[in-house]
Amino acid sequence: MMSTLAERIQKQDQRALAKAITMVDNDHPDKLSLLSEISGQEKKAHFIGLTGSPGAGKSSLVDRLITHIRNMDKTVAVIAVDPTSPFSGGALLGDRFRMHKHFADPGVFIRSMATRGSLGGLSRSTKDAIRVCDAFGFDYILIETVGVGQSELDIMKVADTTALVLTPNSGDVLQIFKAGIMEIADVFVINKADLPGVQKLKTQLKEFLHIADPKSWQPPIVETISTEHKGIEAFFEACEAHKKFLNETDAGKQKRKEQLTYEVYELMREELWKDVERFIGDDPSKEIALQKENDPYQLAKEWLSEWREKGGGS
Amino acid sequence: MMSTLAERIQKQDQRALAKAITMVDNDHPDKLSLLSEISGQEKKAHFIGLTGSPGAGKSSLVDRLITHIRNMDKTVAVIAVDPTSPFSGGALLGDRFRMHKHFADPGVFIRSMATRGSLGGLSRSTKDAIRVCDAFGFDYILIETVGVGQSELDIMKVADTTALVLTPNSGDVLQIFKAGIMEIADVFVINKADLPGVQKLKTQLKEFLHIADPKSWQPPIVETISTEHKGIEAFFEACEAHKKFLNETDAGKQKRKEQLTYEVYELMREELWKDVERFIGDDPSKEIALQKENDPYQLAKEWLSEWREKGGGS
Repeated sequence: MMSTLAERIQKQDQRALAKAITMVDNDHPDKLSLLSEISGQEKKAHFIGLTGSPGAGKSSLVDRLITHIRNMDKTVAVIAVDPTSPFSGGALLGDRFRMHKHFADPGVFIRSMATRGSLGGLSRSTKDAIRVCDAFGFDYILIETVGVGQSELDIMKVADTTALVLTPNSGDVLQIFKAGIMEIADVFVINKADLPGVQKLKTQLKEFLHIADPKSWQPPIVETISTEHKGIEAFFEACEAHKKFLNETDAGKQKRKEQLTYEVYELMREELWKDVERFIGDDPSKEIALQKENDPYQLAKEWLSEWREKGGGS
Repeated sequence: MMSTLAERIQKQDQRALAKAITMVDNDHPDKLSLLSEISGQEKKAHFIGLTGSPGAGKSSLVDRLITHIRNMDKTVAVIAVDPTSPFSGGALLGDRFRMHKHFADPGVFIRSMATRGSLGGLSRSTKDAIRVCDAFGFDYILIETVGVGQSELDIMKVADTTALVLTPNSGDVLQIFKAGIMEIADVFVINKADLPGVQKLKTQLKEFLHIADPKSWQPPIVETISTEHKGIEAFFEACEAHKKFLNETDAGKQKRKEQLTYEVYELMREELWKDVERFIGDDPSKEIALQKENDPYQLAKEWLSEWREKGGGS
């Protein structure tokens, strides 16, 4: 008897894994049943998100982390979220050639995902791909985002441990603070720590940590120089410490529940929205109204009650 | 007979304007009827959005633009979008003291809006506030965003003319390009143009403009030094040229329709989500399921069909 795709993934068939990710990326009709089939069990991997401004060196850090994790005989999947222009619709960077040295290693899986549809955030298919990698049984899943606002805020809803990668020349901490992305960090990484300004940045971060709400987890600050392979172990150990903290306290359980809630809401919203779009798209009179009218509030009200009268997409 | 709030706004009553913006900011029950009442007429103001990375000097540019617009005897409203931490919920910067010199001028209206709820993007209340300012009859409405990803992508859906503010030291243009925010610009502003690197940045921008899809509007590149009041007129004239282009071609009509479509969809979505959240929030069994289950796909499917059976929020 033929194995299902879900079964093949759970048996660590790399081709099944790649196929499943392509399915979720292309919004294949069988996507939801596949995802539901693999999502029944316990989560296995530890999800580490890396975010920070463009140019902070996240990709080389990921590369070094892969080597470190492999040296410990653990397996790792990397989901690299590629920026997509809202106009072009395709991934701009494509597969990451710089990681090609890991390609031959069966304990490493690397996949770039486009941000399309989510305007800077983590797309639905990115989240689904992470679930597929988890079902495959990787020990670690690294999620690297482009760091342009929404993605930083999205990543904490997916990652167990979120690392915010800064550089000594990344500008005033106040700017990062203003952007609201400081508070998502479980671990602060100062990469390119051979550049001047490390002490100043550390002092600023500590001031921030001081004024933050006291909570049981105190985000450590680690220094790395990824080009020289320095500080990688310390960074990884900081992630491990946070993992241990999550496992041993209520925080982990709480985080898991929040992530599940967020996912359920998002899936419901997406499904519902498809209905509404179909309802509007299928009716030529809507197109005409959009050309003639000026009042979005009135149109929204009318169309919503019309949609509800017609059974609300059921 | 007492005038309605909408009538008072249209009669340019500043107190009514401030009151209406507070209403939309607080999601007052009468908000939608007010907005619908003022949205019937033609749009009057030209909406200019300013975006760019934190620290590019957008706020001083806005300050200089106000002076320039006032010198031409035109009126201007400024909606400054303040970053909100997703955790704290309040506007961090509050009202902008640096603009206090314009406070006594009745031809200028300045308001800070929090980004809350939109995680880095333009909140619903920001868009509503812009509509209220338009109904009041300002000649120009400047929308200044924090520039952390989502807001850049949101602003082009609201502004008629979007200016992307860069600095010679803002890093490689490729990084901005990668973030997908380059293509939203109708006008490029190189602020702090007394710093080294202007020529290099211009060359890079021109290369980008060269590879971009040829379209009828070619975004001009203007240089400013806002601290020395230099280049402000050229910047404003570039916005005027784009305004003229929109008014004289189909592009303006097309843009207006796209913006209306976007607004209608957003309003419908918001209303629908409120329903779904109420449906889940009001049912204690949902909370229990979120603690016990692991499969978001299954839960979303079940709850959605349950919601539809109950009449879909109607």
